[in-house]
Amino acid sequence: MKPIEGRKRIVIEHVRPSVNCGRYPIKCVLGDSVEITAAIFGDGHDHVAARLLYRHASQRKWQTANFTELPNDMWAATLSLGEPNETDKLGAWSFTIEAWVDHFDTWTHDLAKRLAAQAESSQDIPLALRIGANHVDAAASRAKGADAKKLNLAATKFRALADSNLSFYDSPIQDELVALVAKYPDLSFSTKHTPELSIWVDRERAVFSSWYELFPRSASAVAGQHGTLRDVADRIPEIAGMGFDVLYMPPIHPIGVAYRKGPNNSVTAKAGDVGSPWAIGAAEGGHTAILPELGTFEDFDQMMKVAAANSIDIALDIAFQCSPDHPWVTEHPSWFIHRPDGTIQYAENPPKKYQDIYPLNFESPDWRGLWDALYGVFKFWSDRGVRVFRVDNPHTKALPFWEWCIAEVLKHAPDTIFLAEAFTRPHVMYALAKGGFTQSYTYFTWRNTKAELVDYFTEICNAPVSDFFRPNVWPNTPDILHAQFQVEDLAQRRAIFRQRVILAATLSSNYGIYGPAYELLEGRAATPSTGKSSSEEYLDSEKYQIREWDRSDPNSIAPLIASLNHIRRENLALQRNEKLHFHTVSNDNLLAYSKSSRDDSNVILTVVNLDPSGEQTGWLDLSMPALGLPWIGSYDVEDLLTGAVYHWKDQWAYVALSPEATAHVFRIHPAL
Amino acid sequence: MKPIEGRKRIVIEHVRPSVNCGRYPIKCVLGDSVEITAAIFGDGHDHVAARLLYRHASQRKWQTANFTELPNDMWAATLSLGEPNETDKLGAWSFTIEAWVDHFDTWTHDLAKRLAAQAESSQDIPLALRIGANHVDAAASRAKGADAKKLNLAATKFRALADSNLSFYDSPIQDELVALVAKYPDLSFSTKHTPELSIWVDRERAVFSSWYELFPRSASAVAGQHGTLRDVADRIPEIAGMGFDVLYMPPIHPIGVAYRKGPNNSVTAKAGDVGSPWAIGAAEGGHTAILPELGTFEDFDQMMKVAAANSIDIALDIAFQCSPDHPWVTEHPSWFIHRPDGTIQYAENPPKKYQDIYPLNFESPDWRGLWDALYGVFKFWSDRGVRVFRVDNPHTKALPFWEWCIAEVLKHAPDTIFLAEAFTRPHVMYALAKGGFTQSYTYFTWRNTKAELVDYFTEICNAPVSDFFRPNVWPNTPDILHAQFQVEDLAQRRAIFRQRVILAATLSSNYGIYGPAYELLEGRAATPSTGKSSSEEYLDSEKYQIREWDRSDPNSIAPLIASLNHIRRENLALQRNEKLHFHTVSNDNLLAYSKSSRDDSNVILTVVNLDPSGEQTGWLDLSMPALGLPWIGSYDVEDLLTGAVYHWKDQWAYVALSPEATAHVFRIHPAL
Repeated sequence: MKPIEGRKRIVIEHVRPSVNCGRYPIKCVLGDSVEITAAIFGDGHDHVAARLLYRHASQRKWQTANFTELPNDMWAATLSLGEPNETDKLGAWSFTIEAWVDHFDTWTHDLAKRLAAQAESSQDIPLALRIGANHVDAAASRAKGADAKKLNLAATKFRALADSNLSFYDSPIQDELVALVAKYPDLSFSTKHTPELSIWVDRERAVFSSWYELFPRSASAVAGQHGTLRDVADRIPEIAGMGFDVLYMPPIHPIGVAYRKGPNNSVTAKAGDVGSPWAIGAAEGGHTAILPELGTFEDFDQMMKVAAANSIDIALDIAFQCSPDHPWVTEHPSWFIHRPDGTIQYAENPPKKYQDIYPLNFESPDWRGLWDALYGVFKFWSDRGVRVFRVDNPHTKALPFWEWCIAEVLKHAPDTIFLAEAFTRPHVMYALAKGGFTQSYTYFTWRNTKAELVDYFTEICNAPVSDFFRPNVWPNTPDILHAQFQVEDLAQRRAIFRQRVILAATLSSNYGIYGPAYELLEGRAATPSTGKSSSEEYLDSEKYQIREWDRSDPNSIAPLIASLNHIRRENLALQRNEKLHFHTVSNDNLLAYSKSSRDDSNVILTVVNLDPSGEQTGWLDLSMPALGLPWIGSYDVEDLLTGAVYHWKDQWAYVALSPEATAHVFRIHPAL
Repeated sequence: MKPIEGRKRIVIEHVRPSVNCGRYPIKCVLGDSVEITAAIFGDGHDHVAARLLYRHASQRKWQTANFTELPNDMWAATLSLGEPNETDKLGAWSFTIEAWVDHFDTWTHDLAKRLAAQAESSQDIPLALRIGANHVDAAASRAKGADAKKLNLAATKFRALADSNLSFYDSPIQDELVALVAKYPDLSFSTKHTPELSIWVDRERAVFSSWYELFPRSASAVAGQHGTLRDVADRIPEIAGMGFDVLYMPPIHPIGVAYRKGPNNSVTAKAGDVGSPWAIGAAEGGHTAILPELGTFEDFDQMMKVAAANSIDIALDIAFQCSPDHPWVTEHPSWFIHRPDGTIQYAENPPKKYQDIYPLNFESPDWRGLWDALYGVFKFWSDRGVRVFRVDNPHTKALPFWEWCIAEVLKHAPDTIFLAEAFTRPHVMYALAKGGFTQSYTYFTWRNTKAELVDYFTEICNAPVSDFFRPNVWPNTPDILHAQFQVEDLAQRRAIFRQRVILAATLSSNYGIYGPAYELLEGRAATPSTGKSSSEEYLDSEKYQIREWDRSDPNSIAPLIASLNHIRRENLALQRNEKLHFHTVSNDNLLAYSKSSRDDSNVILTVVNLDPSGEQTGWLDLSMPALGLPWIGSYDVEDLLTGAVYHWKDQWAYVALSPEATAHVFRIHPAL
């Protein structure tokens, strides 16, 4: 069957960026610009013209941007996504490409060739001028008012020139005329790319954020006392002072009594044991209630106010699972799996059992009711002002649910950030990001050698992954005390804690730590590591008990962390990941990488000693273009951690780093 | 908005092979099998099952094939495309993937873990057995007859075992039961991949063919006489004897008189000059007429018969352009571009003019009529039995036209082969192949150094290009006498002609030569090459005059060509491109590559001396797995060009090749 219009001669393909052939949006933030590339071509020798069409979901009319032709039929255009403060431009954008045969452009180039050859053959020029006059008249018929008049006049001039019978013709084509004709393209047979592609535009914090996690119940200033949301509010200025902008708390809901876990994950709890905050739900309520020991909704609102005053986002932990005491267990039995003996299926990984947790059944006949209730949890806290959610184990809930639920939340609050805590296989982690999660936990914790770090960050900081996946890297979490940290020797422990937080804060624009365990160098594991096996569980984990932390410990690395966060705020280079470049160093214990701001005006070169037990030295072999520097010449590097300035020349530089020094975070100052 | 069924928990993505996200079909031949891979995964720890669904366009019911799970959520299945002689299975096939959560499989694996741990915790096993019984009963409800009974019986046994209160349980799961349950999967919440993907299935010659091009007007056995189709028929046995299976002739239609070109492309023809066969159309007719000097339709039909008897396909040259004398010029003026002076626009590349040629206007208001007429040309010759078309400059005709036209022709004759003669930019060449062209001319002629050949064949013989693009490589064409061949010295000229045809015949399963110019080493250019510029036009080109060829010339390399074609027929390895592997050689003038049959039973290793003027020696560093050989051990290599057999050991082998010897074409014989 013939197409409706067979004269659409242009093909548009390989449009980038796009995720799964346009099935999912790419991710950007407000004020960003994206380079769109595509292969655009037609048959024959006719010239092609193309434009980018784009709009925010609230706009009916397309905005346009021009394409530049690159070699080999590739084209590029820049799409600008609003201004940084234009919050009504958050959310869904779409774009497509329109391209057409540009007969006038073909003609001007042919005429130039004719004029260049007129010494040998000038007889065709008058006829060529008449053809051009027809093109210009056609443009005039698409124009209006003054433009139309100008175009008609130009056509008349072309014809007069054709009649003049000269022996030598100067070119009658001026830039102004070319621009005027281009303003009124003939789109009768233009091709529009299908499908339209989509972009999700978040606020800045989606791509640049520094997270601090703490257990509210350990936040009391009074030893032995259950911390409250008021205590958390009191701690906020200090956390903001350390430079963090997201404060994340494990679930704050009532905790189940049935099968409650005791300290160190013991199967039976004693009276007064506080249980795990992830065993959600009790007589006092479920996911929309607050554990009475933590306080009231008034306390919550007050904490939100203090947070806002300190430019901090409060991140709630959404863990969709229920303790046996959760109201849903009795109100909605069909949301759970029932066993042949009539009991409800608890979480298990045979032969391990987690009887304090009931998973939800996403194959429930009442899946619609379940989805609505889960969405309702987000809506409830969103209505109370929460704009950041850390989602617990999203990979154990149905993927189509997340795609729907996140879209629903964002409809009301497009400034919401969702962090996916999925430590699972790559495809599943990426599917969650494609389906809507703003940020994602990563394998960073287990990428420790130079080769591992280079491979992993190369994968996640480049297309296609970076089109949809935003890493948020954590040296530790309440679930993960990596074996690296389980070191008795204080100096060595301090070195590794310093190293990992420097890596996190300079490799990834989003990072976080679980504190005060981190800054206080907590390295004691529930089961000490052996050569054969290692436990990543903390000893006396806050997951099961209240902890008291001595934040005045002189060994605390809080000052380093504050310094890193300050450096991140001052340097645009560290606020994005797309210009991460690894440099060659002649030592596998030294890792060197640079990041640059989009305009290359800010460049940070970080060199890290990966060995916490000894000095490492080596020669940097810098890729100068990645630093925005010429191959030959001198420049200054300023260590932002120490203030030291070094004068370097060309691509080779010698570095020596002790475990105590750990790293250089250099700002590059090109020679004036 | 919620999906219609929210319980479809499986994601299927990255399905390969697919062309432009499924917009175009992949290409295969009858009897082939294709490996389909995809990422298939769901949430959580539930096991996944998947099957491939596929069918020929004539079939309503899907056939199924099983998937194998690979690491990291990747899956693979093999799709078999009919039997080699099942011609009713030519044409369009489609496939998709269906995947679902396999609760029974999850359960069997969990049970195995429970049984393994029963020494510590056996109390859950009876309940687990009852859950399994429910799964088996559910399968029974989807089954019928004996299978249903067997399944119900198994469920009953599970329950009896659950009641038995043993202290130790043996596994009740047998392979037969697993297979029986798998036969009746629960597809209630299965995911089907969209869109369905398509495969175009051609006959074998689409992928393995040897083309010989000749000008019929030079085919007369009588000196000075205009050759005829009867003369061509007489030559067919000899051409078949050389091992060719496609005989391709430039256009056989009436040739225009207006602006006819004389010998060596002179602008004015003298009386008796025969003109260019590509200036199509005269008083005698256009694209569906035969030049009277060549004969009648009876002669044509007789030639077709002789060709068929010799297992040769006749390939016609379809050049959609008109001489000023073509009937369409007066019958359908709207199919051409008219200039302001009322004349029709001839072909030109300012300031060059080709006044003997009128291009067609694909932006004609009567584009539908034009498309129908062009299609009518194919249909006309197809109805006369032609099944191979070489299409002249398809890249100067609208791309949507080709996609429609080729599909229409294939509807009637799915065994038709279209060769695209497009020497243009890569995206356009690839777009033509995607749009339906069976085979494509390539840049082979201009890929002469080792690095150029390795890069180019690596690109075109691997996915994604090889999914839709089938190279047909030509050392020469009537338009292209590469500067390499323009050598006075006979020995050197013979060496380069030998080299290029050996490369063509062993690198690509489709190749062709323009003869007898090729085998007779015609190297004279219209304008002799200088260091600065080179002409690729032949002196006394057959495009403009009749030539007489002395096929008894003792320097003819026809015996080599016959030998190459014989080797190609005897060795499956040379009949496909997908297992082409380049091997390392310690000399840039030696090129070594192997090809293997799909089952690796036939392996050909070719080593070519790229220097036509001197001996080259070097050490092969063979990648043994690519040869189907172990890294350590001895084997025989048999030079199929000379019959010599060498006994080799391990990966290193020394080779020395004179320009006269040119190449080894080794068959690998593994040690018994």
